[in-house]
Amino acid sequence: MKPEDFERLYPERVKKMPKSIIRELLKMTQNPEIISFGGGLPDPETFPIKELEEITTDVYRTKGTKALQYDSTEGYKGLREELSKWMSREGIESTIDNILPISGSQQGLDFFGKMFIEKGNKIVVEEPSYLGALQAFSFYEPEFIGVPLDDEGMRTDVLEDKLKKFDSEVKFIYVVPDFHNPAGVTLSYNRRKKILGLAEKYNFMVIEDSPYRELRYKGETIPSIYSLAQAEGMNNIISLRTFSKTISPGLRIGWITADEEIINTLVKLKQGADLCSPVVNQIITAEFLKNWSLEEHIEKIKERYSKKMNLMLEVLEAYMPKHPELEWTKPEGGLFLWLSMPHQTDTYEMFKKAVEEEKVAFIPGFAFYYDGSVKNKMRLNFSYSTPGQIEVGIKRLGRIAEKEIESKK
Amino acid sequence: MKPEDFERLYPERVKKMPKSIIRELLKMTQNPEIISFGGGLPDPETFPIKELEEITTDVYRTKGTKALQYDSTEGYKGLREELSKWMSREGIESTIDNILPISGSQQGLDFFGKMFIEKGNKIVVEEPSYLGALQAFSFYEPEFIGVPLDDEGMRTDVLEDKLKKFDSEVKFIYVVPDFHNPAGVTLSYNRRKKILGLAEKYNFMVIEDSPYRELRYKGETIPSIYSLAQAEGMNNIISLRTFSKTISPGLRIGWITADEEIINTLVKLKQGADLCSPVVNQIITAEFLKNWSLEEHIEKIKERYSKKMNLMLEVLEAYMPKHPELEWTKPEGGLFLWLSMPHQTDTYEMFKKAVEEEKVAFIPGFAFYYDGSVKNKMRLNFSYSTPGQIEVGIKRLGRIAEKEIESKK
Repeated sequence: MKPEDFERLYPERVKKMPKSIIRELLKMTQNPEIISFGGGLPDPETFPIKELEEITTDVYRTKGTKALQYDSTEGYKGLREELSKWMSREGIESTIDNILPISGSQQGLDFFGKMFIEKGNKIVVEEPSYLGALQAFSFYEPEFIGVPLDDEGMRTDVLEDKLKKFDSEVKFIYVVPDFHNPAGVTLSYNRRKKILGLAEKYNFMVIEDSPYRELRYKGETIPSIYSLAQAEGMNNIISLRTFSKTISPGLRIGWITADEEIINTLVKLKQGADLCSPVVNQIITAEFLKNWSLEEHIEKIKERYSKKMNLMLEVLEAYMPKHPELEWTKPEGGLFLWLSMPHQTDTYEMFKKAVEEEKVAFIPGFAFYYDGSVKNKMRLNFSYSTPGQIEVGIKRLGRIAEKEIESKK
Repeated sequence: MKPEDFERLYPERVKKMPKSIIRELLKMTQNPEIISFGGGLPDPETFPIKELEEITTDVYRTKGTKALQYDSTEGYKGLREELSKWMSREGIESTIDNILPISGSQQGLDFFGKMFIEKGNKIVVEEPSYLGALQAFSFYEPEFIGVPLDDEGMRTDVLEDKLKKFDSEVKFIYVVPDFHNPAGVTLSYNRRKKILGLAEKYNFMVIEDSPYRELRYKGETIPSIYSLAQAEGMNNIISLRTFSKTISPGLRIGWITADEEIINTLVKLKQGADLCSPVVNQIITAEFLKNWSLEEHIEKIKERYSKKMNLMLEVLEAYMPKHPELEWTKPEGGLFLWLSMPHQTDTYEMFKKAVEEEKVAFIPGFAFYYDGSVKNKMRLNFSYSTPGQIEVGIKRLGRIAEKEIESKK
């Protein structure tokens, strides 16, 4: 068969799948001379390698046959127990029947698309939004309704207007409330409550994706939407979490917390998708939670990332040209800053020059919009690069920004 | 929300998802007094625990940051190289661009549904067929076309008749050629060639799922459909494989071999589904393949399973009642026997009595038919139980079979 013959066998939804531009961009940054703020990788220095080695040896010696066998799709019971305890630290009550370990939080995003979206169904996403979510949902061909962000997160006034317009047609809203990817902002307490009020009125699910929740470097923790929903006796809320930023992405352990009815449906989807998540990885994670102090480990990560974030904010202040439209978010946690260039700038074009002329990379902002419509933003990651790279890289970025602004005068 | 409110948010395809009867049945067999031939678990005594412990320690010490970081969706390069070598043992030529490591072969089944099936599309499956495949494909709402098996595997004469009828409307045929699950039979050489001829003529994909291929206890190895296709210059063939039966299911490492065009499309699906398979598990598997002898390990598994299979065949002969319609397959490998009761028997009813009255379990055959239409078969697993359990369990099964036959006289 020729490539076009294969295509004949694909459904429309597969033919429409774009080649991920981000992946292509990131490939361009593999030259070691390039300083990349593009990825969203944790700092490998934060990985608890010694601890995991020790735990794994112990797991093989004491639970080897359990760890290497199939387990139920619902997940390793010891892990579900530890996850339920972990959630209780945040004031969330749950039993193991409310918890489903999954293969990285990305698997949850795919499941939510599978579970709720029929072609043309309306779902609400933030503008900008996490691109892995946009990609996962897109496959199921929803109609995206975008709601812009400001410094307090999703604009709930705009959300309410759109909900009024579409009445009860919205299936779910997807929100990254803590240290947003890519925008860095955090959803305020009042807006969390407002979203729940709207969910009650318009009968949609709220999907709360919070991969960076533990990584707050300043300011006060705001209760999760899940805990607020629980306090009001509401159950149309799903929480998506991961250990990718606090233990290791290479283990691929995330989890969903939700009403038992939702978990039961997800278990059926997961059975078809991969039978069960790697059992050995689940047991290792459970042992880490049970016998080691993840809290202490997270404190060390926070110290490290907090310094990097402050450094990046400092050098941006020092090296970026002054322009009334050039600004960036000042997050209280997470991994990312969101930088706005003057409105005429196309950061995709700027990216190509940055890589070629200055050997510095970022993600052009259009990738985080379901319709690619906003051109003048960029995402900067501060967790992966070393302090030295942050300083040199932002200096380079400043030069490219300066050229860009000059060229548009 | 009440359960019915959640249901309102689900697409039809989710509402239609059945509660897995098998899962419910297997729950009934968790009483330790019950001898279960129901599951499809490998014998935990075959797990290379010491080797994996040693490899893991080494991986953490020499490649810790790589193993715990994200990797590309395409998979760990070192694993793809080893998999390509592994396939070359069977005469299959490939580069790493033809190979995609996945999270257990079940993930491949989900991807094939996602990739090829639009509601109402025709796909061909064996009758009976692997139930994990039926479950994964069902979600995408195909029209199933069933083709029965005999001692030589799929009846290609029936297949040809059905293809003539539907001309080029069939998207793919799904076949488990080696030591079929549940039927135990192996597809003959001539029929493998015949299927390829039909694939060429009618332009469909052949999906060859072969989880037990390495586990042949007697008879001669038959070339894989993939290798035969390659010899004829055909590329509309996909091979699905796993280490769940030869290393460990708990690591969840399977792989797909296919034309680069197919792999590229699968990579896009996998990116949305889980970003990448657990990196540490991929590296451990690669090291096992590179530095340890998986062939020798497989020889030990074969010796063990071969004895168990022969024992089960012996005790069936000894303890099952004589009846012209009561018979079972005599496989040359794999994990399963397929037993036919007289045509009036409903093995689902028989299952309930077997568990209750005799504390022995199996999987009623209806579960392996997309339409549940065949009632008088059952699947017996011989890999998991101990020899003692096989002897006692089959004695119990013999008594229930006798009662069943008596009651229908």
